[in-house]
Amino acid sequence: MDNENLQESSNKGFSEPAVRRLPVYHHYLVKVHEAGGIFISSTQIAADLNLVQVQVRKDLEFTGLEGKPKIGYEVTALLKAIEVFLGWDKINPAILAGAGHLGNALLGYQGFKEYGLNIVAAFDSDFVKIGKLIHGKPVYSIDFMEKYIQEHNTEIGILTAPAQYAQDLADKMINAGIKAIWNFAPARITADKPDIIIQHESLASSFAVLSKKINSNINK
Amino acid sequence: MDNENLQESSNKGFSEPAVRRLPVYHHYLVKVHEAGGIFISSTQIAADLNLVQVQVRKDLEFTGLEGKPKIGYEVTALLKAIEVFLGWDKINPAILAGAGHLGNALLGYQGFKEYGLNIVAAFDSDFVKIGKLIHGKPVYSIDFMEKYIQEHNTEIGILTAPAQYAQDLADKMINAGIKAIWNFAPARITADKPDIIIQHESLASSFAVLSKKINSNINK
Repeated sequence: MDNENLQESSNKGFSEPAVRRLPVYHHYLVKVHEAGGIFISSTQIAADLNLVQVQVRKDLEFTGLEGKPKIGYEVTALLKAIEVFLGWDKINPAILAGAGHLGNALLGYQGFKEYGLNIVAAFDSDFVKIGKLIHGKPVYSIDFMEKYIQEHNTEIGILTAPAQYAQDLADKMINAGIKAIWNFAPARITADKPDIIIQHESLASSFAVLSKKINSNINK
Repeated sequence: MDNENLQESSNKGFSEPAVRRLPVYHHYLVKVHEAGGIFISSTQIAADLNLVQVQVRKDLEFTGLEGKPKIGYEVTALLKAIEVFLGWDKINPAILAGAGHLGNALLGYQGFKEYGLNIVAAFDSDFVKIGKLIHGKPVYSIDFMEKYIQEHNTEIGILTAPAQYAQDLADKMINAGIKAIWNFAPARITADKPDIIIQHESLASSFAVLSKKINSNINK
């Protein structure tokens, strides 16, 4: 997951590999801040995160903030700059379709709060789940999803349904007004409207790479 | 996650993007098999998975199996070929360190069985969790992890601990004999031994990319 194609990313005006690293800096800076740190140097950040200093400076430049000579970065200012750059300073409400094992895990994932992601409701077709709360989030009937999206102007949809329902649910989300889909279903989905963001996430695909690497190591 | 650097991958003798797609074919072929399908054409696979036919043929060639003209692929043979290629025909036992929210989700993730991944035990420092079962898997004290790895010759470690413990736990895993670490902790880890496979997995990093794309769309 570390070697994204820079070409595609630069078309969108940012470096995807750098964007992927920013949460690591953010997480680290929160700890530094909690420990009472006011300023931090790129040397220190590099040492603590096992990175080279030049890389740290280059990554953090994307946020528009520069470190001061001999002083470094002001921790709170740098945290704020990362949050603004990533859009984490806004609250991004999202709905989730498919309250199975993975959906359950995402509904309970504490880290999302830090990133400004708020899953406001889940949708499922299982009558045992409908009407219940999972990690404090309401589960509604999947038939109610489009109406909910329209009424709440929700723009982010998280797809954790089985593969065979993925495209149909994605179509419904997009028609109702969803602008970005984070797809955890083990199926490729496409959008027939322009400017819809689709991001595929697959544990199976990640494990396939790991498994193939392990297998290649053993066989050599 | 779709645009891995081909250069790095080709050094290891396989195309990482193709490897990432194979689980999607696998999942689809299981359904075809369950529905009674004996043969399947690349045209049909392409149509059902929203891919171009040439891509399908190229991806499946990696498994060493070729489709027959006018007949296509034998479904069970293709399933087997994908499983052997990815190493999913073997049972890969793994241990997991950190039985928090994400660890819990992974312990309960049904999909892993399909890929030959079997999480045999979890380790945590929380006395409330130690000695319990989570989704049928035993949770032991983290102090017992190295001994367990040595006694069971476990080669895969899944890291779902908080960031500040990640490197220390990775070091302990590697010293005890772990050969591959699947790292879900929001921290970079490194190995000081050669030939150790480390694969980073980060929901925060993935959401950062999605969030940045959403943010860029809104601002344009």
